[in-house]
Amino acid sequence: MKIAFVQTGGTIDKDYPKATGGYAFEIEEPAVKRILEKIDPNFDFEVISVLRKDSLEITEVDRKKIYDACERIAADRIVVTHGTDTMIETAEKLSGIKGKVIVLTGAMKPERFVDSDAAFNLGTAVGAVSVLRKGVYLAMNGRIYPWNKVKRNSKTGQFVEK
Amino acid sequence: MKIAFVQTGGTIDKDYPKATGGYAFEIEEPAVKRILEKIDPNFDFEVISVLRKDSLEITEVDRKKIYDACERIAADRIVVTHGTDTMIETAEKLSGIKGKVIVLTGAMKPERFVDSDAAFNLGTAVGAVSVLRKGVYLAMNGRIYPWNKVKRNSKTGQFVEK
Amino acid sequence: MKIAFVQTGGTIDKDYPKATGGYAFEIEEPAVKRILEKIDPNFDFEVISVLRKDSLEITEVDRKKIYDACERIAADRIVVTHGTDTMIETAEKLSGIKGKVIVLTGAMKPERFVDSDAAFNLGTAVGAVSVLRKGVYLAMNGRIYPWNKVKRNSKTGQFVEK
Amino acid sequence: MKIAFVQTGGTIDKDYPKATGGYAFEIEEPAVKRILEKIDPNFDFEVISVLRKDSLEITEVDRKKIYDACERIAADRIVVTHGTDTMIETAEKLSGIKGKVIVLTGAMKPERFVDSDAAFNLGTAVGAVSVLRKGVYLAMNGRIYPWNKVKRNSKTGQFVEK
Repeated sequence: MKIAFVQTGGTIDKDYPKATGGYAFEIEEPAVKRILEKIDPNFDFEVISVLRKDSLEITEVDRKKIYDACERIAADRIVVTHGTDTMIETAEKLSGIKGKVIVLTGAMKPERFVDSDAAFNLGTAVGAVSVLRKGVYLAMNGRIYPWNKVKRNSKTGQFVEK
Repeated sequence: MKIAFVQTGGTIDKDYPKATGGYAFEIEEPAVKRILEKIDPNFDFEVISVLRKDSLEITEVDRKKIYDACERIAADRIVVTHGTDTMIETAEKLSGIKGKVIVLTGAMKPERFVDSDAAFNLGTAVGAVSVLRKGVYLAMNGRIYPWNKVKRNSKTGQFVEK
Repeated sequence: MKIAFVQTGGTIDKDYPKATGGYAFEIEEPAVKRILEKIDPNFDFEVISVLRKDSLEITEVDRKKIYDACERIAADRIVVTHGTDTMIETAEKLSGIKGKVIVLTGAMKPERFVDSDAAFNLGTAVGAVSVLRKGVYLAMNGRIYPWNKVKRNSKTGQFVEK
Repeated sequence: MKIAFVQTGGTIDKDYPKATGGYAFEIEEPAVKRILEKIDPNFDFEVISVLRKDSLEITEVDRKKIYDACERIAADRIVVTHGTDTMIETAEKLSGIKGKVIVLTGAMKPERFVDSDAAFNLGTAVGAVSVLRKGVYLAMNGRIYPWNKVKRNSKTGQFVEK
């Protein structure tokens, strides 16, 4: 089994740059690589960086780039890491792709934080991508949702059934 | 949706006691609780402690206890945390239980370690338990296996297809 | 021995708020409390929050507040946690206080990060405050400097001898 | 300024080996290296591995080895990482060395643990070794003790004034 991991940015990949004043943040190398180093994965994988954006800044042009990347990738199991704010919009866009299992996930706290949810969420996504049938899904808050059966609670930030 | 988490012990729950000489280790409170605190879970859950043993020390009497606990629990989705050395044996035992989804998982490094695989593995198990049909499964190394389709590579410790 | 810890804000106490879009950061509870929980301290202490500001935003009025707090505190050993950008300015201000050992420290990465320097730096400051004679010092990058013998390399952010 | 770090083993360097059954632990690479990577140190340093033993297993022959290493090292500032159980015995042995500042430290929980005291303790030791006058000291629990002014509370494991 082979899984392609697609980086688009978002909280999961945010880091705090040394030597910079103020509240600045930067989206860095895919956290996926660091997480997979811990788990001795029993699958082949590649990590592809398509974008490094906060998901509020993702444009339609960016979304097309993500779409094209997912279509072009040879693997038919894809995990897309993405900011939480527009994850559902990108999932909808990707639902045009047929013949692949695509699972989007991300994090409420950057993977670099001691109390991050990134490793757990990626675990959910990886498990899901290996057992689900073709389609586009979100994996967040311990649940897996088909892309068109999920909404976000704007107050708590939690993803819930629609 | 409700998930019951059953603690049996194993590496995932090992901690290093303060103020003790030598190489001693102890199995402590279920790591599951600390992991779920990070993820804002969108499901109900309970955590039940049945055993606190290294899985090499689990006897047939212990296994019967785990079996009885899983049968008695009202929830029909159960995640069992377990030592890796005899996880497959316990899975086989639990396969006698009908009408429930049971996923066993654990860790190669205790959850208290910076480089633990515990959160990722639990994420895989929680995702799996919510989407799989009734039966008994193992979630390790990023994969989900039916209990009778998995063996362990005794050299690397990795779980692989049988 | 009693040490008073004074929170003024800065990177050390920054956290990533759940459920908020964009790159926002917030200064939260003193990281000092979490760090001291790990070390079984053999000294009495109190933690006093005076400010929660990025140090670029600290005004002269704020600095007066920090000064007044340090003067008012009964303990004659004080560790001030502070943003790195204007730590030296605040140290100079505090040099007006006589009869106390005051050590300023902070972090290049928030304490909540896996790869934070916060615990190490606080360790340096606590060690220093217990053995140095009265005066005002900075503890950063593994070194302890009298307040008027230190400058900051504006490119690397490292504190160095003046 | 140059500091030599001498590894002798102890809890600070213990790690949990993958793929091994039971409660086994191993003493691995010096944790000092990982800690210093986080702090952008403003001093030169070298890390020398002399022993990798739990301190209950350190013999008089081993202690002589540590003594010889500390004497041979060119740097006149030395931090020795050591198991806590016989740290005081080794400190006494090292008190025969003249003309150097030697600070012993260690940890109650391995550096690999999320809630380890290792980084804090090393910070205390590094701060101490740079400001203290020649002699042998222990840095533990946030305090710095001359080697002959410290004992250990055998119940709590805390180092306290003698």
